[in-house]
Amino acid sequence: MEIMDLPTNKDIYSVALVIVGNEILSGRTQDTNTSWIAENLNAMGIALHQVRVVPDIEAEIVAAVNELRGKVDYVFTTGGIGPTHDDITSESIAKAFGVPYELDEVAFRILVAHYGSEENVTPPRKKMAMIPKGATLISNPVSGAPGFQMENVFVMAGVPRIMQAMFDDVKTRLSRGKPVLSNTIACSLQESAVAEPLTVIQAKYPNVSIGSYPHFRGGLLGLSLVLRSSDDPVLDKATGEVIKMIADLGGEPNALSIQSTGKKT
Amino acid sequence: MEIMDLPTNKDIYSVALVIVGNEILSGRTQDTNTSWIAENLNAMGIALHQVRVVPDIEAEIVAAVNELRGKVDYVFTTGGIGPTHDDITSESIAKAFGVPYELDEVAFRILVAHYGSEENVTPPRKKMAMIPKGATLISNPVSGAPGFQMENVFVMAGVPRIMQAMFDDVKTRLSRGKPVLSNTIACSLQESAVAEPLTVIQAKYPNVSIGSYPHFRGGLLGLSLVLRSSDDPVLDKATGEVIKMIADLGGEPNALSIQSTGKKT
Repeated sequence: MEIMDLPTNKDIYSVALVIVGNEILSGRTQDTNTSWIAENLNAMGIALHQVRVVPDIEAEIVAAVNELRGKVDYVFTTGGIGPTHDDITSESIAKAFGVPYELDEVAFRILVAHYGSEENVTPPRKKMAMIPKGATLISNPVSGAPGFQMENVFVMAGVPRIMQAMFDDVKTRLSRGKPVLSNTIACSLQESAVAEPLTVIQAKYPNVSIGSYPHFRGGLLGLSLVLRSSDDPVLDKATGEVIKMIADLGGEPNALSIQSTGKKT
Repeated sequence: MEIMDLPTNKDIYSVALVIVGNEILSGRTQDTNTSWIAENLNAMGIALHQVRVVPDIEAEIVAAVNELRGKVDYVFTTGGIGPTHDDITSESIAKAFGVPYELDEVAFRILVAHYGSEENVTPPRKKMAMIPKGATLISNPVSGAPGFQMENVFVMAGVPRIMQAMFDDVKTRLSRGKPVLSNTIACSLQESAVAEPLTVIQAKYPNVSIGSYPHFRGGLLGLSLVLRSSDDPVLDKATGEVIKMIADLGGEPNALSIQSTGKKT
């Protein structure tokens, strides 16, 4: 598995995301957490290595988390930590680690403060203070009920606004690598035209990941070439070669067609 | 694993989707294929059981496909079947099945017809006629280069318009179960208020999957309750109980807040 080949000096750390989501699998909800998390991790030198969307079934959650937590630096989960019958992520994580699932006093106090009194923390709300024994809390400034960290597994809410607020806490606990930078060059060439010269450039720059992505826009097939690397000077050198390649093929890239992310401006 | 518990009479078939996609993992591209595929499968009585987004790394593609193809009825893959160096899905599927990766004469003739002559089928384009030995082709009326089926694994393009065109061919080859119907009821109650009565309703209707999904709209936390089942009369009965529950809690659901999918109208 590629994950075994990650640099031991940790220029790049790795995350696997487990989305607990019947609502994604049913097609009802369009996931947007993946791209948000990926972009925020890029800036921290952490690569999103794999995503799994699993149903709200304990055995599936346990299997995914236990398989992935030994393979990547960090596992994130989103979804399934609310008060209803279909929220089974916290108990599943306790099963995955073989530890008790129990009321956390600090989490309970957070809920009492959020809802105003102990009486207001009804049994369903109290469920949101149940976490695996030994976990530490992840703060939730939006709606009170915390997420939690169990070893290298970070359990967050599925609602994007709450997940994003929890990530503010999570990111303080993650080791950081070298930010992943990218240049994207759009052109109107066909993939088959660029394939051979692009293979030559890719072979010359093993530390730059070069991707070729055709797309339809306005009924026309276009092409985006994406170069990604943590090494800024090498990235720019490879980008220069791709731009020259496009020009040589008559594709006329121009400044407006080049987008960069993660670069200092 | 839950998949072992699927009904043997096959009211519902199952699909796992493997998205080969560095562009999804980098955050550059927002996946939309998952929800499109899920919705189209629902109507056929086929449930999307799991999704994996894996990087463009052969070992990861092989591992995902080989793990999943024994667990579900059908595996779909999207992405990585174009002409460039980063398109490695077809060769990876050949490795997964332990068969040669070779030029398919029928696929080659399709490309010759699409591009107008044998000379126009340049080496990069010819790569798109390379498939695992024994696979059958999936037609691509949009851009010529076919996908393919290898046993229960269906290999499709990643570009949504092309994937959707290929799905027209794929769907003729899939067994069909009973369509999955759903009712969604929006209300302004809090999850903790509905948690206990909803658990009672869920216990009463084991053949209906009831989900509770909080969301932010216009800065307010709202709630959608989603009921899904292949049994229309039972679904409607359970939905009636949920509507009554909401009314009893003072949540006043109305006709405008109820959406149904898959129902005959």
